[in-house]
Amino acid sequence: MAQQERGARSRNLLLKAAAEVFDERGFDSASTTEILQRSGLTRGALYHHFPSKEAIAVALLTTHREALDVPAQSTNVQAVIDLTFAFAFRLQRDPMLRACVRLAVEQSSLRDHAVTPYQQASTAVRELLAQAKEHGELLPGVDLLEAAEMINGTFTGIQVMSRVQTNREDLPERVSMMWRFLLPGLVNPGMIGHLRVTPTPEKTDRSARQTVQA
Amino acid sequence: MAQQERGARSRNLLLKAAAEVFDERGFDSASTTEILQRSGLTRGALYHHFPSKEAIAVALLTTHREALDVPAQSTNVQAVIDLTFAFAFRLQRDPMLRACVRLAVEQSSLRDHAVTPYQQASTAVRELLAQAKEHGELLPGVDLLEAAEMINGTFTGIQVMSRVQTNREDLPERVSMMWRFLLPGLVNPGMIGHLRVTPTPEKTDRSARQTVQA
Repeated sequence: MAQQERGARSRNLLLKAAAEVFDERGFDSASTTEILQRSGLTRGALYHHFPSKEAIAVALLTTHREALDVPAQSTNVQAVIDLTFAFAFRLQRDPMLRACVRLAVEQSSLRDHAVTPYQQASTAVRELLAQAKEHGELLPGVDLLEAAEMINGTFTGIQVMSRVQTNREDLPERVSMMWRFLLPGLVNPGMIGHLRVTPTPEKTDRSARQTVQA
Repeated sequence: MAQQERGARSRNLLLKAAAEVFDERGFDSASTTEILQRSGLTRGALYHHFPSKEAIAVALLTTHREALDVPAQSTNVQAVIDLTFAFAFRLQRDPMLRACVRLAVEQSSLRDHAVTPYQQASTAVRELLAQAKEHGELLPGVDLLEAAEMINGTFTGIQVMSRVQTNREDLPERVSMMWRFLLPGLVNPGMIGHLRVTPTPEKTDRSARQTVQA
């Protein structure tokens, strides 16, 4: 049991060190030597957990899923909105998530694996939109798959622009803007005034606590 | 004069070779040696035109501006829409433009220069939107700067997702989808039915001819 715990801890150390290196250098320029130096572990420990640099990146990409959990909200559309603000908040603070996003956005020899985060995000948003549709929150003609792709595509581009222009400092304001433009094509007109398109204060606190514990 | 022409031609050969290499490898992994091999020119010719790899990338980023020219249309909003379809069409076929977009999207030691294409796109779209506003095509409350950032941000993310998922094959369909979702938050309701949110056949032919000539 103690050995298992040590194993899980060293795996986690490797993932965090790799996230930092991928976040800073991208996939192709990242080296396992630098990952080892940052983690303080041996090459033997690395190969015990991951057969290759690619295997570490693939494991990292699956952690992206955690950033897509969202607490229950008054409406399902509000839950989608809050999901994007929580994701933006975490992207500003969590190197693991930043590494996932960089691995997904940039062209590298990682290729097909880069699709994982988009599929996870599309599934998470589509499920919430399906519930929104069932509760009559959406405009009649909205295609769920398209709407999910649109929300994720817009978020992807907005975070790229925010990174280039302000190192992601203005990301929450850009997410607010995104929703002001998207909601009229997505939800029933009567709902728009009742939706909050700014970050939730409580969520901000909770995420901050998680970040400190991590 | 003949010498000037040769100079312009070799500068152009270098830019095209560099575009291919940046498009395939990104900025940091691109080498001037490979750029020289592809261009068939000497290192002396390279340094005559560009003092460094960075200088080539900066010159390439300014060529992005050409992809933002758009012919006159029935309405200014239609001109913005057509601009995005023409840009998408060219992105599928022109390595120079693909290189600009890759240099702008990816994190590299190029840093601040990556902002150039976003500024160019924002200016081009904002000017068209300003004319649209003057002609009463937009919803009353629309902020021109925000709308331009939203259109460019959405396009950026959509082309990233299209590249990851289909090597940009489905980009025109994604641009159609983008406009179906964005127009209700942007233009007067009465206009929506009169706007075409599919590629123009003429534009497609003209761009195809340009590509063949290039």
